[in-house]
Amino acid sequence: MASYKLTYFNLTGLGEPIRFLMVYGGMKFEDCRIELEDWPKIKPNALFGQLPILEFEGKQINQSKAICRYLAKKVKLDGKTDWEDLEIDAIVDCINDLRFKLADYFWETDEQVKSKRKVTVFDQTLPFYLERFENIAKENEGHLALKRLTWADIYFVAILDYLSFLTEGDIIKNYPHLNSVKNNVLNIPKIKEWVAKRPKLLF
Amino acid sequence: MASYKLTYFNLTGLGEPIRFLMVYGGMKFEDCRIELEDWPKIKPNALFGQLPILEFEGKQINQSKAICRYLAKKVKLDGKTDWEDLEIDAIVDCINDLRFKLADYFWETDEQVKSKRKVTVFDQTLPFYLERFENIAKENEGHLALKRLTWADIYFVAILDYLSFLTEGDIIKNYPHLNSVKNNVLNIPKIKEWVAKRPKLLF
Repeated sequence: MASYKLTYFNLTGLGEPIRFLMVYGGMKFEDCRIELEDWPKIKPNALFGQLPILEFEGKQINQSKAICRYLAKKVKLDGKTDWEDLEIDAIVDCINDLRFKLADYFWETDEQVKSKRKVTVFDQTLPFYLERFENIAKENEGHLALKRLTWADIYFVAILDYLSFLTEGDIIKNYPHLNSVKNNVLNIPKIKEWVAKRPKLLF
Repeated sequence: MASYKLTYFNLTGLGEPIRFLMVYGGMKFEDCRIELEDWPKIKPNALFGQLPILEFEGKQINQSKAICRYLAKKVKLDGKTDWEDLEIDAIVDCINDLRFKLADYFWETDEQVKSKRKVTVFDQTLPFYLERFENIAKENEGHLALKRLTWADIYFVAILDYLSFLTEGDIIKNYPHLNSVKNNVLNIPKIKEWVAKRPKLLF
């Protein structure tokens, strides 16, 4: 069987949704983890200077969401119609918008700019997105789209550790329906086994 | 025939790739354009407080790239295999990363932060992305993926006016293969006709 190689940092971050999907589907893959100190020598040869990168049959591709969408088709966690795919894609992009805004604040190196952004993130950005996600999870009975498990759930739950790292707290603590989404994913036997055995990291 | 309603600002921006795709496919759609002064009253009821929004058969959805991917399937500008779709999705996400970085600089309100970002954008970000896009366009013979017209080309060319507005210049001026991508799209008769008759705006 042809197999995949995933190259990412030795972290969860944007690599973990890809790992979750391959684990869920029982796909064989090489889980290549780059230590942060080795990154400067690897970066100039990385496609767009970014990880994750997926390799398959001699081809390389970047962009985590695009890779997840591709794998979701392989493991049957995509939509059954074009509109269903659109619903999944839209919520994933919204999750990613939130991720981007949190990262934009957290990794800012100018302390003055960072402290201004912190106020916006905690007072506006987080409640704005999480209230909407919570309503969607309620309407979809513990899922983020289509009232069933899709790769949107996997994507969200797999990056939760990173989102919580960026905000130094459990961002879904006060959102019971988002906790249902989390539990629904983390209770999938193959995912549960993966989470128990994966390296214990900063995030 | 069921028809679509697109709600966006009276600008090209993130709405234009959606308009291009519907125009290309000869799809009927209502091109609802919001004036900037009316946005504050509309925003609170907009899905995630953002435009564009697409409506179809009583359902509403946001996220421009997700909408484009959906429409691309309808007008046959998607991939023929899952991997082809992945290649298109990945380059579109890279284009969007560039768009985001340019917008992040341009719309910054703190003049000191903005002038620092300007240096990074012009000295690093633009050449980094454009050189890679140029090589891809060369390898793909005037396209951004698969050596043929896909929605990646449409997406790129439709937001070029916005990207050039953000950088106050023609960003692809020195990139002949990216100009081929542009010409290939703008010479499609239906697109040419649309561009000639669309409202003349700031971008």
